[in-house]
Amino acid sequence: MPSSRLSALAASLPAAHLDALALNMSPSLTYLTGLHFHVSERPVVLIVPTQGEPAIVLPELEQLKLADLPFAVRAFPYAEDPSTWDGVFGQALRALGLDGKHIGIEPLAMRLMEFRHLQAGAPGADFPDASDLVGRLRVCKDADEIAAMKKAVGVAQQALEAILPGIRVGQREQEIANGLVVALLQAGSQPELPFSPIVSGGPNGANPHAVPSERPLKNGDLLVIDWGAAVDGYIADLTRTFAIGNVNDECRRIHKVVQDANAAGRAAGKPGAPCAAVDRAARQVIEQAGYGQYFTHRTGHGIGLEPHEDPYMRGDNQLLLAPGMTYTVEPGIYLPGRNGVRIEDNLVITADGVECLSDMPRQMRTLG
Amino acid sequence: MPSSRLSALAASLPAAHLDALALNMSPSLTYLTGLHFHVSERPVVLIVPTQGEPAIVLPELEQLKLADLPFAVRAFPYAEDPSTWDGVFGQALRALGLDGKHIGIEPLAMRLMEFRHLQAGAPGADFPDASDLVGRLRVCKDADEIAAMKKAVGVAQQALEAILPGIRVGQREQEIANGLVVALLQAGSQPELPFSPIVSGGPNGANPHAVPSERPLKNGDLLVIDWGAAVDGYIADLTRTFAIGNVNDECRRIHKVVQDANAAGRAAGKPGAPCAAVDRAARQVIEQAGYGQYFTHRTGHGIGLEPHEDPYMRGDNQLLLAPGMTYTVEPGIYLPGRNGVRIEDNLVITADGVECLSDMPRQMRTLG
Repeated sequence: MPSSRLSALAASLPAAHLDALALNMSPSLTYLTGLHFHVSERPVVLIVPTQGEPAIVLPELEQLKLADLPFAVRAFPYAEDPSTWDGVFGQALRALGLDGKHIGIEPLAMRLMEFRHLQAGAPGADFPDASDLVGRLRVCKDADEIAAMKKAVGVAQQALEAILPGIRVGQREQEIANGLVVALLQAGSQPELPFSPIVSGGPNGANPHAVPSERPLKNGDLLVIDWGAAVDGYIADLTRTFAIGNVNDECRRIHKVVQDANAAGRAAGKPGAPCAAVDRAARQVIEQAGYGQYFTHRTGHGIGLEPHEDPYMRGDNQLLLAPGMTYTVEPGIYLPGRNGVRIEDNLVITADGVECLSDMPRQMRTLG
Repeated sequence: MPSSRLSALAASLPAAHLDALALNMSPSLTYLTGLHFHVSERPVVLIVPTQGEPAIVLPELEQLKLADLPFAVRAFPYAEDPSTWDGVFGQALRALGLDGKHIGIEPLAMRLMEFRHLQAGAPGADFPDASDLVGRLRVCKDADEIAAMKKAVGVAQQALEAILPGIRVGQREQEIANGLVVALLQAGSQPELPFSPIVSGGPNGANPHAVPSERPLKNGDLLVIDWGAAVDGYIADLTRTFAIGNVNDECRRIHKVVQDANAAGRAAGKPGAPCAAVDRAARQVIEQAGYGQYFTHRTGHGIGLEPHEDPYMRGDNQLLLAPGMTYTVEPGIYLPGRNGVRIEDNLVITADGVECLSDMPRQMRTLG
């Protein structure tokens, strides 16, 4: 699979007026090559020309990882002394004849560290943003990718169901988050989770990206759990909101509004619909209920190898949905100092509509 | 603590001929401010001027995270539409009077995405590498930081000891790695581990950065386990190598050589010694045993908030060790196609010598 992806990428370069694409260690590199490295202080950069073998600059100690690649690559390994690295980048770029040429890069993944080595190695080159090139390949998932995401959703749901019966008033958010991570691994997630679970009770739930704290759960809290799993590199990203004991009417009301917004957002996806329509469908429900100003983020984002990737469900995004696109629908209401609600599902656009990959109950369940 | 660190940083800018430092979401940002964000497609950038309040550009939905900061910061929040972000960066940079000025950055952490927003917001500024400024503050740990690292080492050792009795011939590397992650969380590690454990048997152990595979353990394998834990944001990073059943003489020999090299490297650290001396001490043992060409990496690296940070134990690094510096000593021998050995400990330089934080047995233990 990766080698055909690499050929498709190389073939797309001329139309984009590019002579090559340079990728540091990133999900796009894994997508194209199957290679995995830790992102570290040692740069790893693959350079894909329009024709012929790609080059890879990498640490000597990582060379064994090239042994099983299903395509030919020219390795430019470097030793441990960083003062030698510019020279090795120069060798690789000259070998491909790229000085003075147009070398696309991905600004969202590439650090200035790798970029400055590339600039030093090809001082006459320019480096336009080429995120769209791999992005176009990655955004529509094939059957294997969708199957992996379905497995990841199954693992995530199974893990949360396993810990729900144990959640009690007085437990700390961190304790619940740790228990959930253990349950995720036991259910079959890869150890490298797409993100650490968000477990936020009461006022902490009003911060959409709260980090689990030492705050104990109280009777009357809403409890937001936003968690994920990864299978074969592909991720799930779900959220459910629970009632701890007896919650007040405001909590019940905002939960119901968000549940309706989630349903509207899930129903709005189909081939040919703009991403903005999904955002609009969900946002409208919250606005009509009078909580528009408390829904402070976009309705969703693409998922795949990364927990956030194209396509984004934003009001300004006119990108048209197409079969194989996978994304979240996750409206929320956040009342500062009081409580928050978010309900998030994972969807895939099909030939004639949309399929929801997640099916855990969305209505407010009471715990504790 | 963070606010005094921030003052120390601001005070160090003029001597470095800088008018400000710009930091994206990175361990340095957490170190200086206590703030945590996920690195994502939404930029978060703190800009610290020489005097007065720092500015932070961040998503509107993250603003609540600023509520508990122990210092004043001017927030420049942006909405979800990325086309508006350059403008918000421009507001922040103009508010601090930074166009045309010298703004330091950390190339190892900053992505081109954040960098290009900064450039758009201050087109007349230049952006020199200022990694050393926060690096100098971070490299010598205080008592609280060392205490956290001791806890992390304790958690890591306890977790590995818990799973060793269950390791058997026929188990797959991935299965062992998953079990170790569960044990790490149960022992008290934060859910966000510093890195996923490396569990590599037989020939896979000859790849220093192998990813756990589906290969089952065989009688006669060496088994390399490189694993870590995190407590209060600070990490442990350890490696031990085990014998699975009956291993041959070569395996016993290389394990003993690495054990001796590890001991020599651990003994070589003290205030005033160059990092290169630690590398030399360990490497010499391996070279003298005739395996020099199979020790393909530096002897160690600093640890703290990051799994790899300054100071690096490399032959070319003349940086002098000083009290509070924390680092690994991890010599290895890698015989392609056969086996690998690595033994890694964590150390801290004290007022008059060096203390080893880890104490798990280093001699070859037999499992399975």
